[in-house]
Amino acid sequence: MTSLTPRLRPIKLEGGVVKAVDQRRLPHEFVWLALHSLDEMIHAVQTMVVRGAPLIGASAAWGMYIIVKTAPSPDADDYIRAESQRLKESRPTAVNLAWAVERILPRILAAAPEDRLDTARKEAEAVSGLEAENCRLIGVHGLPLIREISERKNGGTVQIMTHCNAGWLACLEWGTATAPVYAAHEAGVPVHVWVDETRPLNQGSRLTAWELARAGVPHTVICDNAGGHLMQHGMVDLLITGTDRTTCTGDVANKIGTYLKALAAKDNNVPFYVALPSTTFDWTMRDGLAEIPIEVRDPEEVRWIQGRLPDETGGRIQSVLVLPENSPVRNDAFDVTPARLVTGFITERGVCPATEEGVAGLFPERS
Amino acid sequence: MTSLTPRLRPIKLEGGVVKAVDQRRLPHEFVWLALHSLDEMIHAVQTMVVRGAPLIGASAAWGMYIIVKTAPSPDADDYIRAESQRLKESRPTAVNLAWAVERILPRILAAAPEDRLDTARKEAEAVSGLEAENCRLIGVHGLPLIREISERKNGGTVQIMTHCNAGWLACLEWGTATAPVYAAHEAGVPVHVWVDETRPLNQGSRLTAWELARAGVPHTVICDNAGGHLMQHGMVDLLITGTDRTTCTGDVANKIGTYLKALAAKDNNVPFYVALPSTTFDWTMRDGLAEIPIEVRDPEEVRWIQGRLPDETGGRIQSVLVLPENSPVRNDAFDVTPARLVTGFITERGVCPATEEGVAGLFPERS
Repeated sequence: MTSLTPRLRPIKLEGGVVKAVDQRRLPHEFVWLALHSLDEMIHAVQTMVVRGAPLIGASAAWGMYIIVKTAPSPDADDYIRAESQRLKESRPTAVNLAWAVERILPRILAAAPEDRLDTARKEAEAVSGLEAENCRLIGVHGLPLIREISERKNGGTVQIMTHCNAGWLACLEWGTATAPVYAAHEAGVPVHVWVDETRPLNQGSRLTAWELARAGVPHTVICDNAGGHLMQHGMVDLLITGTDRTTCTGDVANKIGTYLKALAAKDNNVPFYVALPSTTFDWTMRDGLAEIPIEVRDPEEVRWIQGRLPDETGGRIQSVLVLPENSPVRNDAFDVTPARLVTGFITERGVCPATEEGVAGLFPERS
Repeated sequence: MTSLTPRLRPIKLEGGVVKAVDQRRLPHEFVWLALHSLDEMIHAVQTMVVRGAPLIGASAAWGMYIIVKTAPSPDADDYIRAESQRLKESRPTAVNLAWAVERILPRILAAAPEDRLDTARKEAEAVSGLEAENCRLIGVHGLPLIREISERKNGGTVQIMTHCNAGWLACLEWGTATAPVYAAHEAGVPVHVWVDETRPLNQGSRLTAWELARAGVPHTVICDNAGGHLMQHGMVDLLITGTDRTTCTGDVANKIGTYLKALAAKDNNVPFYVALPSTTFDWTMRDGLAEIPIEVRDPEEVRWIQGRLPDETGGRIQSVLVLPENSPVRNDAFDVTPARLVTGFITERGVCPATEEGVAGLFPERS
C-alpha cells in the first residue's frame, strides 16, 4: 500500500484569520486564501473557492465567526442577524449552508457580548469537527460494501465510479463519497476509481484526481460522457457520489450529470450509493424534483476553461474560450436523481435504503 | 426567418488538389487544408480534421482519388489495393469508411489504366453527391416529425436536443441530425436546439453551435451533464443524433455519451430519433454492444483543451492542460445505444422504427 498523505481540512483559523484552500487553482497550485470579511467569504462561496455541501457548511460556520469579528460592536444583534441572512442566501442548493447558520446564530445571540467571538469560534470548530467525524464514520460504514464486492470477485479490484468531488476538499478530512474508498484503500482492499471529469468546472479531473493521486489511490479520469459505456461493458462495480441536498424521501440533488450516471447504473445493475452526513438531509422536503432549488450559474463557466499553458509558453494558469463568440449557454449546476434510482445511503449512522422508511429507520428522531 | 448562409461540402477538389475544412480550428478559424498524399489524408481522418460518418465516407472516396493520383503508375494494382487497405483501416468505428473504399476500389481496378484517375474522381464526386442527397432527403422525411410537435404545442417552439456534430460539417450540405432542423427552420417551424458540448473534442459547442449560428437557428450550448436535467423539467421535445454505425437490428454506435442521453429520453418519454443515410447501416452485424468496434483514442485529447486566448493575451488558439500532470486517462470515442432506447430512424427513404423489421421494411433489398 502506498503511504498516505494526510487528509486535510480545507478551511481553518490561523492567527485569528480564516483561511481556505483556493480550489479554483487546483490541481496546478495549492494556495491558502485569507478571508477577512463576510464579503470575501461570500465571494469565496459563490466563486467556488470553497465548494461541496459539508465544506459549505463549515465555511458558513467560519462566516459566522467573521460576522461577529467584524461587527461594529459585539452586541450588534441586528447587524449579526442581517449579515447571517446574507450569508445564508449566498448559494441556494447545498442545505448545509442554512443548517450551519441556523445552528450557530441563536447560540451567538444567546451568549454574552464579550463571549460571542469565542462562542462563534468554538461553534465553527464544532461544525468542522462534526462534519469531519461524520465523514470518518461514512468511511467506516461504507467499507464493508466495498470489501464484500472484492470478496465476491475473489479479492479482485473493486471498480468504483464517482462524479464531481466529494472528497476531503469538499467535506473535511475523509470526504463523503471518497470516505469508503480511502477506508478500503487503507484496509488493503484493492480499489480503482473512475473519475468523471465533471464539466463545466471539472471538479472531478481537477480535484478528485488530485486527491486520489496524493493518497496513492489508483484512478483513471474519464469524460462525463463515458460512464454509461464503461458500465455497459462490466467495468464498474459500484457508483458512489455525494449530494448537496437529499430529501427525507430519498431524492438526491447533486452535481449536474449525476442523474445520467444513476440511469446508467440502473440500466446495468450497478449499485448506486450516495454518501452523506445527516446534515445534508432536508427534513422538510418530500419531492426533490419539484422542491429543491437548482442554481443556474454564470454561462462564462462553460464558455471559458481554465488550465495550465505548456511549459514552453510559460506554464501559467490561463483560461481559453471554447465556444463561438456569440453562442448562448445555459449552466444548471445540479440535478435531482429520484430515489427510485438510488440503491442506498451511506451515513454516519450506517447504510440504509433510499426510501423514507430507510432514512427514518436510521434517524427516527427526525421522522 | 433569418437569411441562410449556404451549407457547404467540407471536402472538395480544387485545381486537382483535395481540400478539406480543418475542423480542429473551428469555431475560431475557418481554414481549408490541402491534402496531397494518402498519408496526409489518413492523418486528417485520424486527427479529425475531417470527422462524422458520411464525411469520413466522402474523405475515403477522395482518398481513393489521391491513391490513384500518387500511384507509381496507373496500372499498379498491388499498390492501389495495399494503399486502399491502409486507408480502410485508418479509423475503426464509422462504417462509411469501409463502405466507400469497397465501393470504389473494384471500379478503379476495372477501368483501363488511362481512365483510372478520371474514374476515381467521378466516383468520389458520386459518393459526395449521394451523401449530400441522402442528407437532403433525411431533412424531407424528418421535417414532419418536428412540424407535428409544433402543431401539438399550438405552433410553439420545438425544443430539440442533439449530441456531437451531425451537421453539414460531418455529413455534406444538410447534415444528418441537423437536416430536419434546417428543414424545419426554412419551413418556418420554430425550433430551438440544445447543443451538447460533447467532450472531449467539443464537436457540439465548437461545430454544431457554429453551424447553427451561421444558419440563424436559435440554439443554446449546454454541458453534456445537463441534458437529463432539462428533460426532467419538460424542456426537451425531441432528441436527434447521427450515428457512426448502426446494426441491421437497430443498435446505434454514436459519439460517446449518446447512450446516457438515450436513457434520459426514455426515462422522460422524450422521443429519440437517429438520423442516418443507409450507408451508415452495417448489414452484417446484429449485436451492436458485442460487435461494433469502439475506438479508444489518445488520452491527450482529454488532458488538453484547445480554445482561444483572450484578446488581451493575443487571441491565438492555444491548448491548456486541465488535469493533474500524472493522472491516467481513458478516452473511448463512441458508445452503443441499444435499439430498445431508440424511437426510430430517419433515413433517405423515410422514417421507421428502430427494429430489424422496421429497417427491413425500408430497405427490403438488404434483408
